[in-house]
Amino acid sequence: MTADADRVADLVERVDAGEIRLHQLTDHTDSDTAAAVRRQVVETAADADCEAIGDYGFPAAVAEPNIENMIGTVQVPLGVVGPVDINGAALDDERYLPLATTEGALLASVNRGCSVINKAGGATARVTKAGMTRAPVFSVTDVAEALALVEWVRDNEAALREAAEETTNHGELQDVTPYVVGNNVYLRFQYDTKDAMGMNMVTIATKAACEVVESETAASLVALSGNLCTDKKPAAINAVEGRGRSVTADVVVPSEVVVETLDTTPEAIAEINTRKNLLGSAKAGALGFNAHVANPVAAMFLATGQDEAQVVEGANAITTAEETDDGDLYISVSLASLEVGTVGGGTKLPTQSEALDILGVGGGGDPAGSNADALAEAIAVGALAGELSLLAALGSRHLSSAHESLGR
Amino acid sequence: MTADADRVADLVERVDAGEIRLHQLTDHTDSDTAAAVRRQVVETAADADCEAIGDYGFPAAVAEPNIENMIGTVQVPLGVVGPVDINGAALDDERYLPLATTEGALLASVNRGCSVINKAGGATARVTKAGMTRAPVFSVTDVAEALALVEWVRDNEAALREAAEETTNHGELQDVTPYVVGNNVYLRFQYDTKDAMGMNMVTIATKAACEVVESETAASLVALSGNLCTDKKPAAINAVEGRGRSVTADVVVPSEVVVETLDTTPEAIAEINTRKNLLGSAKAGALGFNAHVANPVAAMFLATGQDEAQVVEGANAITTAEETDDGDLYISVSLASLEVGTVGGGTKLPTQSEALDILGVGGGGDPAGSNADALAEAIAVGALAGELSLLAALGSRHLSSAHESLGR
Amino acid sequence: MTADADRVADLVERVDAGEIRLHQLTDHTDSDTAAAVRRQVVETAADADCEAIGDYGFPAAVAEPNIENMIGTVQVPLGVVGPVDINGAALDDERYLPLATTEGALLASVNRGCSVINKAGGATARVTKAGMTRAPVFSVTDVAEALALVEWVRDNEAALREAAEETTNHGELQDVTPYVVGNNVYLRFQYDTKDAMGMNMVTIATKAACEVVESETAASLVALSGNLCTDKKPAAINAVEGRGRSVTADVVVPSEVVVETLDTTPEAIAEINTRKNLLGSAKAGALGFNAHVANPVAAMFLATGQDEAQVVEGANAITTAEETDDGDLYISVSLASLEVGTVGGGTKLPTQSEALDILGVGGGGDPAGSNADALAEAIAVGALAGELSLLAALGSRHLSSAHESLGR
Amino acid sequence: MTADADRVADLVERVDAGEIRLHQLTDHTDSDTAAAVRRQVVETAADADCEAIGDYGFPAAVAEPNIENMIGTVQVPLGVVGPVDINGAALDDERYLPLATTEGALLASVNRGCSVINKAGGATARVTKAGMTRAPVFSVTDVAEALALVEWVRDNEAALREAAEETTNHGELQDVTPYVVGNNVYLRFQYDTKDAMGMNMVTIATKAACEVVESETAASLVALSGNLCTDKKPAAINAVEGRGRSVTADVVVPSEVVVETLDTTPEAIAEINTRKNLLGSAKAGALGFNAHVANPVAAMFLATGQDEAQVVEGANAITTAEETDDGDLYISVSLASLEVGTVGGGTKLPTQSEALDILGVGGGGDPAGSNADALAEAIAVGALAGELSLLAALGSRHLSSAHESLGR
Repeated sequence: MTADADRVADLVERVDAGEIRLHQLTDHTDSDTAAAVRRQVVETAADADCEAIGDYGFPAAVAEPNIENMIGTVQVPLGVVGPVDINGAALDDERYLPLATTEGALLASVNRGCSVINKAGGATARVTKAGMTRAPVFSVTDVAEALALVEWVRDNEAALREAAEETTNHGELQDVTPYVVGNNVYLRFQYDTKDAMGMNMVTIATKAACEVVESETAASLVALSGNLCTDKKPAAINAVEGRGRSVTADVVVPSEVVVETLDTTPEAIAEINTRKNLLGSAKAGALGFNAHVANPVAAMFLATGQDEAQVVEGANAITTAEETDDGDLYISVSLASLEVGTVGGGTKLPTQSEALDILGVGGGGDPAGSNADALAEAIAVGALAGELSLLAALGSRHLSSAHESLGR
Repeated sequence: MTADADRVADLVERVDAGEIRLHQLTDHTDSDTAAAVRRQVVETAADADCEAIGDYGFPAAVAEPNIENMIGTVQVPLGVVGPVDINGAALDDERYLPLATTEGALLASVNRGCSVINKAGGATARVTKAGMTRAPVFSVTDVAEALALVEWVRDNEAALREAAEETTNHGELQDVTPYVVGNNVYLRFQYDTKDAMGMNMVTIATKAACEVVESETAASLVALSGNLCTDKKPAAINAVEGRGRSVTADVVVPSEVVVETLDTTPEAIAEINTRKNLLGSAKAGALGFNAHVANPVAAMFLATGQDEAQVVEGANAITTAEETDDGDLYISVSLASLEVGTVGGGTKLPTQSEALDILGVGGGGDPAGSNADALAEAIAVGALAGELSLLAALGSRHLSSAHESLGR
Repeated sequence: MTADADRVADLVERVDAGEIRLHQLTDHTDSDTAAAVRRQVVETAADADCEAIGDYGFPAAVAEPNIENMIGTVQVPLGVVGPVDINGAALDDERYLPLATTEGALLASVNRGCSVINKAGGATARVTKAGMTRAPVFSVTDVAEALALVEWVRDNEAALREAAEETTNHGELQDVTPYVVGNNVYLRFQYDTKDAMGMNMVTIATKAACEVVESETAASLVALSGNLCTDKKPAAINAVEGRGRSVTADVVVPSEVVVETLDTTPEAIAEINTRKNLLGSAKAGALGFNAHVANPVAAMFLATGQDEAQVVEGANAITTAEETDDGDLYISVSLASLEVGTVGGGTKLPTQSEALDILGVGGGGDPAGSNADALAEAIAVGALAGELSLLAALGSRHLSSAHESLGR
Repeated sequence: MTADADRVADLVERVDAGEIRLHQLTDHTDSDTAAAVRRQVVETAADADCEAIGDYGFPAAVAEPNIENMIGTVQVPLGVVGPVDINGAALDDERYLPLATTEGALLASVNRGCSVINKAGGATARVTKAGMTRAPVFSVTDVAEALALVEWVRDNEAALREAAEETTNHGELQDVTPYVVGNNVYLRFQYDTKDAMGMNMVTIATKAACEVVESETAASLVALSGNLCTDKKPAAINAVEGRGRSVTADVVVPSEVVVETLDTTPEAIAEINTRKNLLGSAKAGALGFNAHVANPVAAMFLATGQDEAQVVEGANAITTAEETDDGDLYISVSLASLEVGTVGGGTKLPTQSEALDILGVGGGGDPAGSNADALAEAIAVGALAGELSLLAALGSRHLSSAHESLGR
């Protein structure tokens, strides 16, 4: 995007003079000129060059809901793997999966997994639980008042629902669960947010419900998020109870495919999964029992405009692998708390929107929520492909190593 | 980047005919044409448009170490906050911080935090521990053999160091810690990787050390990563012992700044931090005791070419806040496992490299490691600014709410 | 208890000859003689003396529901603290608390806490949640079948309740929550077990419900406990969701009592609680954020015939401390998963039964469940007294140390 | 123990009159009379009977180091299992294991496991790591001072060791590890405490070392235990790094023994272990991946005079089970943080001392530490027997259930 040089120079001067602050520039000029001014200010301050950053592909105004103080964009390499057969409830078709990353070999690895999944007839995927949460914390006088609040909430869930749902066209309050710690009461509100990831929606709705609590009880709101939500922190509550979508993908890979394509055995993969993903993670005090689920999750989040900070919760995943009675490989990955949406947030940005279209899940789904379900299923299958591929690579090396061992 | 249309059409045909697979295209043409071919194939398959994705700003060949099956880039809005005063050991200066995100209001919030930090004379930052880890898992016959391996490792750390360090010009093996689970022995290797995040370096070095273990003992290598590393999974071992850099930033904000600029009090912020970040996270079974550290971490990781999947470990952070004896606000954030580098990975890509230059930390530091230390300090200060701003916003609301409460 | 020497000698001979095994002795003689025989066999084998063990105070037959292969008893010193004022919902009175321990200074410490609680007008205590759980694990073919089972359970909770409740006179099924991990489905059954701790009751009831699941669906039961219960393992699910009773005790200690009796200040206690119990436990990756709650829990469990292995869950407790607006000390302890009963298990044994009578909570309560609630409240107050006393001791030392520091 | 009735009556009167408080009674009379007085006071207050409690088997003075305000003892049924073959490094022999419990069927179950272990030629056991820890928390001004303290500690470990070891005849300081959270520095001191569990020893030694820290640096001691020890709280740091003894026991059970004695198969046991102990615990956010290790640990702790509250850490155990290449069953249990001693604490009490003698590990070992090692090995084998037995029982039921399933 280009901007008028004189206009930029003039505004840079006024910024330097302290007349205008960087974030006020859009009050004085268009978004692209403002970005150019900021770039120049930063370039001078840092004695650096921001040319590539300034070489972005859409009007800066488009990103106004997404960022302040914009100077341009970061360009992250985007590739595809697949197509891969997805036997989901919301997405039952073949799809290319878009992944954005800077980690070489990741797409090659996931791609190999997709190829094996196809040979096995595709991966099954299901969303087994869904609900976006927000958990405000209230302070009360003592535990007697805490218990009174807990009981009030049980008796007044309808009033809370009404207040919450008045703020939203789509969201539905599913549940409110209270937790007591001394003179603090945390209320974990859970909503069906349809195709939206829903953090904003549930924050606004919960705020309305909190006003009811404050007006009807003696409790005082301390924070709309009391960290029992839990957003963007590794937390057992998400790994146990889920947040966003809980989604599982699995596949049975015939023994001959494992042996011929992957150069290992179902038994070896199962053993490695146990020693590494289960026992190793157990010993590490982990909430993630997988090999590298965060890799495809982060790459697909980035590609499709999801919130990158929520990769944290996306890593709460358990991988299982076993030899079936028929000698084949059953492998699964269960992501407890995948927070995804196909509307809102970064999903409308040009490249991200196109990536959603590659998956065929852009915008609101029909029925509502089905597009976000489909996105969750696709990511789960991507994660499964990544686990399968990495475990197989280890199995293949292990097998060679075992052979050598036996030979000596 | 443009590609010759006929050439593209021809190759698309050959892909469709099954002659060439997507990842083989670079054997037949240049990287940009290959990307164009893939886009067209994907566009047809998905009945989608990939124009914005294809409108990237550098030769695709540049990204070859970073991705396979490239079709273009994802463009993520990039902005700056600050400049902010950083009183670090490696970075002792004023800096604009680059953040890439799609979450509106994030930069405004962090920016406000930076402004308050400046009014307080800047934030102190220190790397208190550093070391990148890789923990292979070996299988042994039984616990007697496991103990023998543990003892062998203690007696032969020099030999392991020699083998490991032969593979690298920069890396230094600091420590090997054994963990036993039944007939599995995990050896957690920890290295100084200087300015590199270092996963590749330590994987290669550890592989060499493992060969020594296998040749000298009865143990059999199962996987180079036994999940006690722990990479890209939420795990207590990282929160407790650290991985990459353990870095803390803190600041004392004078009472009058808190009251006048933030419209709250040190006491209110301390109370909210306790009820939300400490007690709420405790009740959630969390490994992160903070408000939204993952936000600035993810945004600065994305801006500077770090591995986005490692935002998982970056969220292992504890925020503290207290009223000092003088009535001021002490606030800190301690990130246990921030895995960053200024060389390798995505740091060489055009926009990411420019973002590192904005911070003045691109490439190898002098002394080696100082640039990555500086980046860690900058991210910690960004995280501190985010925590300060969000807690203050809650404090401000809470104060109003408390006032109303008192009024009724 | 004495046994006929000749009879013993004869049976020892037959055991030595391999005719009778130790656990078969009760088929051949009375319980006390059997114990004497076992003692003699063990004494000979170990060249040890079991005189004190054999000097027990009740007919061995009394302990038949509690142990096999009995040789006598272990005698653990039992003392009392208090009386302490308990302002509970189930127990609103003054009580001596019985504690059995071998750790010197524990009762002195808890006693001091009780004394301070009394000066503050007594401690408030409330059970905020109750329910004993059992979570069988079923295997299914794949995630599609897993989701089908989840949906079946939602639709058939009434049938499960009927089957479960047929097995018990007292227990009531409150809830069944499904969790999916690959081809495993865990169903967490939660019951109101009234005055019983309830593990046996819920195991039997859940077994009946599982038979319905197996007969009506394709799922196959793997284990009646799938470890999501979670019994006798430290687990976030208990710390978050509770198991048995979730109970909180709290008290506001006037400033002058803190200063005069405890030689410290509310502010100092609050600070120590934050730095030690909150931040220290956070850094430790803990599920317990307290000083030594396990001590009074273990001692009161032992005294009252609770299951000592469930001290594990009893340690899932959070202690909070703050200076109130009036300058007093608010302190609380919230035990998430206290598994207690006043009927069944070890509660009928002579000394344990007497200890329950000291608390006035022996046997079934009126209404049912109120005695176990009262026991939970009493233990919570004991835990509160222990926390208060230990934190105050630290505060007193810290204050001296701070004074010295200021002096130099 | 009997006491003079008149003397008791007189003292009861004086207690009732408020002249003497319960804990002051030993200033006025002997321990047994004091206990009798307290019993009568409690009996009156609670309208309860304490006859069985008063029927204890040793002079109350014996328990003076172990309890205050003693009124008698709790008698817990004690039994034995075995003898079982233990192939340990410190204990290489056949032993009866003493267990005290009120949970019926526990000894029968562990006994069955012992019998199978014997058929398999005994269980191997090894202590793989040892060290008792205490982690004081210091407050500092800011992170710059925190880092300075960390560096000071690294440079002055010798001075800390000298100060610490001056306080003890047996203890040896092995290591000091610093952890930084904002303006808090935790120093985790780790000691070899030989045959003592060692909490008192390390507390005194660490106190001395803390005085050096306070006199030589600007840091101020907040609490001698900063909860990173971690004592009596479930905490990942113990599960990961160990505390007390890390000990593993394992055994290979021949296939025919599994089939004939246990009525199941190695494969079935391995599968159940994975679905229940590994996947179930993973989903529960657990630090314990076992079936019921806490049961034998609690029962053997109680029998041998260990600290019952430390059952919490004793539950940090991982059970593994697999079918070997030969079709046999390999099963192991690794207890990360078993805190045991054979001197001090409750080990000198009459019944507990006899129970240690049954194991042949009473008092100080030769070499020092070997008795506590032996006790750890014995408990690990007891835990292994319990796991084996319970998993086999599940396997047996599962097999029947699977047969029925196949039949329909």
